[in-house]
Amino acid sequence: MSTQDWNPALYARFEDERTRPAAELLARVPLTAPGRVVDLGCGPGNSTELLLARYGQTGITGLDSSPAMLASARQRLPGLAFELGDITTWQPAAPVDLVYANAALQWVPDHEQLMPRLLAALAPGGVLAVQMPDNLDQPSHQLMREVAADPRFAPAIGDAGQLRARILSADHYYDLLAPTAKVDVWRTTYYHLMDDAAAIVQWLRATGLKPFVEALPTALQPLFLAEYEQRIDAAYPPRADGKRLLAFPRLFFVARSPVAA
Amino acid sequence: MSTQDWNPALYARFEDERTRPAAELLARVPLTAPGRVVDLGCGPGNSTELLLARYGQTGITGLDSSPAMLASARQRLPGLAFELGDITTWQPAAPVDLVYANAALQWVPDHEQLMPRLLAALAPGGVLAVQMPDNLDQPSHQLMREVAADPRFAPAIGDAGQLRARILSADHYYDLLAPTAKVDVWRTTYYHLMDDAAAIVQWLRATGLKPFVEALPTALQPLFLAEYEQRIDAAYPPRADGKRLLAFPRLFFVARSPVAA
Repeated sequence: MSTQDWNPALYARFEDERTRPAAELLARVPLTAPGRVVDLGCGPGNSTELLLARYGQTGITGLDSSPAMLASARQRLPGLAFELGDITTWQPAAPVDLVYANAALQWVPDHEQLMPRLLAALAPGGVLAVQMPDNLDQPSHQLMREVAADPRFAPAIGDAGQLRARILSADHYYDLLAPTAKVDVWRTTYYHLMDDAAAIVQWLRATGLKPFVEALPTALQPLFLAEYEQRIDAAYPPRADGKRLLAFPRLFFVARSPVAA
Repeated sequence: MSTQDWNPALYARFEDERTRPAAELLARVPLTAPGRVVDLGCGPGNSTELLLARYGQTGITGLDSSPAMLASARQRLPGLAFELGDITTWQPAAPVDLVYANAALQWVPDHEQLMPRLLAALAPGGVLAVQMPDNLDQPSHQLMREVAADPRFAPAIGDAGQLRARILSADHYYDLLAPTAKVDVWRTTYYHLMDDAAAIVQWLRATGLKPFVEALPTALQPLFLAEYEQRIDAAYPPRADGKRLLAFPRLFFVARSPVAA
């Protein structure tokens, strides 16, 4: 817990858990052979790999704003096109058949503007497929904010915890999309099996906890993480077999543009 | 609605929506060729059909306590074995490789006893796969109980609304199963697209509303349904396209027995 280093074995284990929602999202996309596919916020390419497996290489582009993530994605899938770019300003050169955004749009503000803009990027019959963590009200995230409010950390963290957008309700996304698309919405809470409180903290360090920890001076980070882990330990007590269950809700939707008349 | 048996036609009206969770449950079953499969509470055979499509005909049995549902299932899948039986007392003649229970166990009491008993019916490496509606706290079901408490209906309905067991939490099922099985738990809320309030009432009449309506004298049933529909209309307002979204949470788990040493 004392360094910012990755644990590759732990990361590999969590990758299965992180890829499952990506696969479940893709399974609901009603397209058999989309010509142009964009993986918005492709990260290290685990979601792009699913698109490749289902649709083949032609026409798939991965977009991410992190050079490190893109380097990892290119290493994983050497034949594929990956581009550095920001979803907030992304505009495709030509209409896209599938805009796929797995665990990405929660970092993009103003969904009331964003979703219609993404729908407008679709070709007739095209699909916008989105999955976002919906866990800001879970103990995991409430406790992050609680520890961040501690006077020892608050001055350094400031608004860093606001970096991630509070996502809208299922009803609200439906209202944004339904006037111009056929929409399927669902929300799944996964109960991830974790060895202990430290494993939960490790999981969150790679994503939700990142802005909090990075805002702190290096010397304060271990203290913050120790405080947080203590609260996680109490909020996620051991189950009958000693493991912890990390409840992780995610919101999904698949919106399909009308086929041209 | 004047008979006590299930109504397969009414149940079938929303069959696509009802079959989706059955398919998602089956997709998580890690067995490629189970020898003996039992579909507990098979209803009209829509879930059994999924088992047949994945595993072939050999070794599949459907069990249900409703003669009408079994007749419908036999008509749908003539080559398959269907048996009249009660899950509460069910004991297989030999260990089973897959006990699959889609939208059935919420009608069976005492899950603390039931789940270990079903696990004990498994062969080594066998799987117990369960999906149950977890919607008793939704407006749809709160409003049922609210109308049932009205002095015009309460004397006839009495405890009929208690017929369905209140299911346990995800954590609790995990604790029951984890000591003897490898467990995967999740919970999905579907947002079903419904034309209007009447359609929501139709959906629920085939299942959750059944015990309430059947407890009433025929003359009172239309009044009860009209009162209920009025409240549903207010609780599920029209979305941007005029349709209603019926939020329907369901709890899932897949528990696998250890392979014999």
